[in-house]
Order: sequence, then structure tokens, then C-alpha cells
Amino acid sequence: MKIICTRQNLIQGVTTAQRAVSTKNPLPVLSGILLTAANNKLELKGTDLEMGIQCIIPCTVQEEGSIVLPAKYLGEIVRRLPDTPIQIETQEGINAIIRYGQSEITINGFHAEEFPSFPNPQGRNTLVIPEEELKEYLRQILFATSPDENRPIFTGVLLEVSDNKIKLVATDTHRLALKEINVSSDLQDINVIVPGKTLNELARVIGVADKEVTISMGDNQVIFGMEDTLFISRLIDGQFPNYRQVIPQGYKTRIRVKTKELLEAVERASLLARVGTQIIRLSIEEDKVIITANTEVGRIHEEVQVYLQGDAMQIAFNAVYLIDALRAIGSDDIYLDLSGPLSPGILRPVEGDDYLSLVLPVRTI
Amino acid sequence: MKIICTRQNLIQGVTTAQRAVSTKNPLPVLSGILLTAANNKLELKGTDLEMGIQCIIPCTVQEEGSIVLPAKYLGEIVRRLPDTPIQIETQEGINAIIRYGQSEITINGFHAEEFPSFPNPQGRNTLVIPEEELKEYLRQILFATSPDENRPIFTGVLLEVSDNKIKLVATDTHRLALKEINVSSDLQDINVIVPGKTLNELARVIGVADKEVTISMGDNQVIFGMEDTLFISRLIDGQFPNYRQVIPQGYKTRIRVKTKELLEAVERASLLARVGTQIIRLSIEEDKVIITANTEVGRIHEEVQVYLQGDAMQIAFNAVYLIDALRAIGSDDIYLDLSGPLSPGILRPVEGDDYLSLVLPVRTI
Repeated sequence: MKIICTRQNLIQGVTTAQRAVSTKNPLPVLSGILLTAANNKLELKGTDLEMGIQCIIPCTVQEEGSIVLPAKYLGEIVRRLPDTPIQIETQEGINAIIRYGQSEITINGFHAEEFPSFPNPQGRNTLVIPEEELKEYLRQILFATSPDENRPIFTGVLLEVSDNKIKLVATDTHRLALKEINVSSDLQDINVIVPGKTLNELARVIGVADKEVTISMGDNQVIFGMEDTLFISRLIDGQFPNYRQVIPQGYKTRIRVKTKELLEAVERASLLARVGTQIIRLSIEEDKVIITANTEVGRIHEEVQVYLQGDAMQIAFNAVYLIDALRAIGSDDIYLDLSGPLSPGILRPVEGDDYLSLVLPVRTI
Repeated sequence: MKIICTRQNLIQGVTTAQRAVSTKNPLPVLSGILLTAANNKLELKGTDLEMGIQCIIPCTVQEEGSIVLPAKYLGEIVRRLPDTPIQIETQEGINAIIRYGQSEITINGFHAEEFPSFPNPQGRNTLVIPEEELKEYLRQILFATSPDENRPIFTGVLLEVSDNKIKLVATDTHRLALKEINVSSDLQDINVIVPGKTLNELARVIGVADKEVTISMGDNQVIFGMEDTLFISRLIDGQFPNYRQVIPQGYKTRIRVKTKELLEAVERASLLARVGTQIIRLSIEEDKVIITANTEVGRIHEEVQVYLQGDAMQIAFNAVYLIDALRAIGSDDIYLDLSGPLSPGILRPVEGDDYLSLVLPVRTI
């Protein structure tokens, strides 16, 4: 393999493919990125065997071929290269000389044959979503996934398509976020759980205006296709919990409040509450909510103006969960709907009924 | 104590005084900041018993008095307060109510009497240096101090005044940085070692154009006076090594090189060299320096254009020390002067002879 490409393209390709590379993988070759040069394109692939990312960048191919180079060193080196044309030439298929100006770096790698074969993406049942919109949906949902790998279902996001609606749902059993997207065209039903890790990495690379993401279903895998980049991810086996069941219908207490005012008050309360268990109390009165926390450091009494419909109510929440939900909601004004001190609180944007998040209360004495 | 002040002033005062507060101090009251209200001023003091910082901010004093409040919580809280007038009122001298809008936080503290008495700054033998200049001098010097508290002298900076020259010198025994400042007025001789920690914190708060720092000597202490802020620091006991002795006179090899080009080449070499011992080799030839490193990850061959006076030379350095020195020098073009493969390398700006730094070579086989 012998190619010439620009520093900027190389940085983009390596940085993207590297997102699938796990530093913890015991198989040495998986710490690398597979580079394959053909047809005046350089294809870069990284994988942790659960997720794979393939990125294509333009280059001048002087000699076709392929090699695996260590992702970490390759990434650090290309980011520090001068802005001149970069030549990469392999030697005996196990190391590569990176030439720039009068200088060169030889980096030791692996034979391309050692790299695991990438599942051939054969998608069907395709959804198309603008990049900017999908990025925002993911921001609104991903905070509610669990980091606990022992319960894989909760580390994922349910992707459900039925009745011409796409639904994204995440829950860690303490809170839940639900986004509905109406689509005009007829779509086949889908019901899969996509790893949160895949979607987190996807959210970092998308967001370009006027570009779209194509989502296709394979056999126990999902494929996200962007302009020059492909994400292939396994799906999570199992049955997602019946989220409809946990969302209360109706409410006894509804407050309308400025998101920013409530968020800042809860963030201040959290500064004190975190020395304890992060429990804060909300006392909802006619025209205000009083937020209190009381710990060994001190105590806080915050008043935030609200519009109340229904009954006064007292309820306690974990401040961190409330902060996450308020940051994710993406709306200046929200409704907080409550049905009782032991029932979940539901946050909804005042504009639109396509999103909600649910936070379980904390039982206090 | 009962005062009203602006959020911005309070943030500034707390953030500055907090710089002297150590999170590791075993004495609980030292985790706090002493607030004293009198004469429509709020004085904030923090100390770790080695360094003390005193900051004065304007406020409306409704009732004089004082209290110690925990620096960490106070800092986090004031940074999160809304931009409204802030009232602070003490209760029984051991806690304070912080009021803002309709809300309030009560934070538990300590009686002011528990706070150690601050040494009364009585300086003499005063130097005056513009803030911006001192900040730059400190940047050029502080990297060469040692973090090793077991050898206190090397954690400090020598401040020497003699023959109408101020000299700042730091060394960790592997490298050394020296700055000379000519002063016009007659100054008494000074020869003290100032803790690097004090100067690091000082460098963070100074830098305002058209403001000056007044440096005064007390009994085994040094006082840095800015407009509303005072740093008081103990001095380090002991004899600073005779730095003149280690700086070679003359050279066998002098190269003139672009700082940025040499720095970027050494940084790239360091990416590979760090998997070993950070050793890089410099081979100085007629019109270029060739920088090489060879480790299990790979090898690098960098060529940087130079103007050579004197002999060709081969020498090896620790890449990290060379990077630190090149980043600190603050000059587009430098001279690197060498006297032999086992003698220190001297870096000097091409413009001006008021600064140099010295890096010991590494002996290689």
C-alpha cells in the first residue's frame, strides 16, 4: 500500500474509525485501525467486535494494499503532523512509513489478514432522518440509559417503529425518556434495542446541516449510514420493559415553569444535597415551588415561580436525575405533572407532545 | 456580620482567597475562608499556613463582623448564584445565610476566632514590576521548578537582587531557567527562595495591563501586593545552588533554529519516545538537525533546518525537558548552544540576552 492524502482528511478518517476501538480489548490487533487503499480511496475501519465504524477518505493511491496500524499512536501522530501532503507506505505489510516534508515516522502494525472480517452490511427496512434532528433526539434520550453492563437491556435505546411513528425510549429503571417522531411514509414495524454506546459515538459524528442518516436493519445488527461513514452495531438481545405501563395517564398536579429557573435552583440545591444522598424536596404551592435540601454542610430554600393546575403537592427527587432531565428537555418552558408523592414525575415541553421524560420520586420519612 | 454585594465581586474575592486554601490540610478551619466586614469592604482571607491570600471587595456593610465559611462550598455556591444582589448574614457567628431573590442558602462555618492569625505584612526593600511582565517572567521560569517536596530548595525560585539587576532562577537539577531584569533605581541586595506554589498561584491572578505588583521582603516572608489583593508567603530556608557554575561559558556548536519547527518535531518524536525513556537523539549537521527516536512502537526521523556555527555534534536529551524549555522561551527564533555530548545544552532567544534555559543531556551508549 502506498498513498498520498491531506492531513485534514487523514485526521478525520482516523478520528472517526478510532471511535469504535476499545482500549480495553485483549486482542492486540483490535487496538488498530485497518487501512485499505483502492480506487483512489482510503478506507479506515475500527471495531471492538460489538460496533464497527468504516470511514472513507479521498487519497491518491500509488499502490493498492492494506495494513493495520495502532489507533492510539496513529491518531496522536496524524494530529501533530504539519499541514503538508502525507505519504503512507507499507513495508512487508507489518509496518508503515509516514512521510511528511523531509521527515518520516515508521510505525509498527499488524498484517491486514489478522483483522477480524467486518460483517457485510446488508440492511433492509430503512429509515432516513436528517443528521441535525437525530443528534438532538439522541441528546434528549441517551442520558436515561444505564452504564451498568450487567443489565444490558438498560444500556440500550429501544427503537420502535409502528403506525408510522418512530419511538426512541431509554430507561435505567430510575428515569425514562421517550421521543416520538411522526413519519409520513409507510414503514415496516421495527422493535430493536440499540446499544447506547453506539448511539453516543454516532451523536458525536453527526450534526451536519442538510445531511441525512440512513438507518437499516440487518440480522441482529443495525447500520447507520452517513455520507462517508458507516456505523455497524450489534443489537442487544432481550425484551425491553413495557414503558407504556409506567407512564401515568393524567395528573393531580401540573405546574408550568421556566426550565432554566427550575434547573438553576435544583443545581444549587444539588451542591448541598450531594454530601448526603442527593435528595431534594419539592413543595408545590399555589404560585411557586419551594425546593429544599438539608445536609451537614447547610440547608437551602429555593423559590421558583410556577403556574399551578390541580392540587398542592410535596414530593422528593434525586437532584441529579432532575438535573439530567431538565438539561435534556430542550424547551424554554415545561410542564411537570405529578400524581402523588410516590408516583413518577413527568416532564414535558410546553410546545409539542412528542417528548417526555419520567423521574421516579424518592420515598422520604 | 451582614453585607450586600454583587455576585461578580463575591466570585472574584472567593476565587482569589481560595487559591491559598489546601484541600489536604488536617485543621478543619483552614478549609475555610475568613470573611470580615467593616468600612464598606469585605475582606476575604485564605491560608494553608505557608501562603496567605487576602482579597478586598466592595460591599454595603449593614452590620460589621466576621465568620469562616468552607471555601469549597462557598466557591461552588457563589458561582451558581443568579446575577442579583447577594446578602450574607451570619447567625451566632457559626453559620451564614446567603440570600438572593426569594431564595436562601444557610451554610455552616466556624467562629472567626478559630482562624489562625495572619502575619501582619510589614515589608521593606520593595520592588515594583508591571503585572503583565511579571506574569511572563514567571511563565518562563516556573516550569524548571521541582515538584519534589523532599528537596524544598528545588521547589522554589531564587529571587536575587544585586548590581541593579533582578534575577529569577529555578532548577530541578535536570534543567535550569534564568531571567534577568535590569532596573534603573538603586535597590538593596536580596537573596531569597520563594515557593514555586506561591508564584504559580500568583501567576494565575496577575496579568492586568497597566497594573503593578509590589514585592516586599518581611522576616522570612515575601509579600506580593496587587490592587485589591495581597499574597503573603513564607520563604524557603537554605542555600540555592551556585547556578553560575553550571552554565557553560562559550560553546563549540551553536545552531539558530525556528522555535516552532524544532518544538513540533520534538513533540512528534516524544509521541514515540514516551513508550521508552523519552530519550531523543539530535544529530546536528551543516544545515539541519536530525532528530531520531526508536522504540517498540516505531521510529522517527525528523529534519529541521538550522544555521550552524561551529562543529557538528551528536547529543541526546529527554524530550519532555526540551519541550518544556522550547514552550517557555517565548521567542520565534532561538540559539541552542552545545559544548559536547555530556555538557548541558543552553537555549537562548535570538533577541535579547536576558533569558536562558539549560537542559542536561542524557548519556547514551
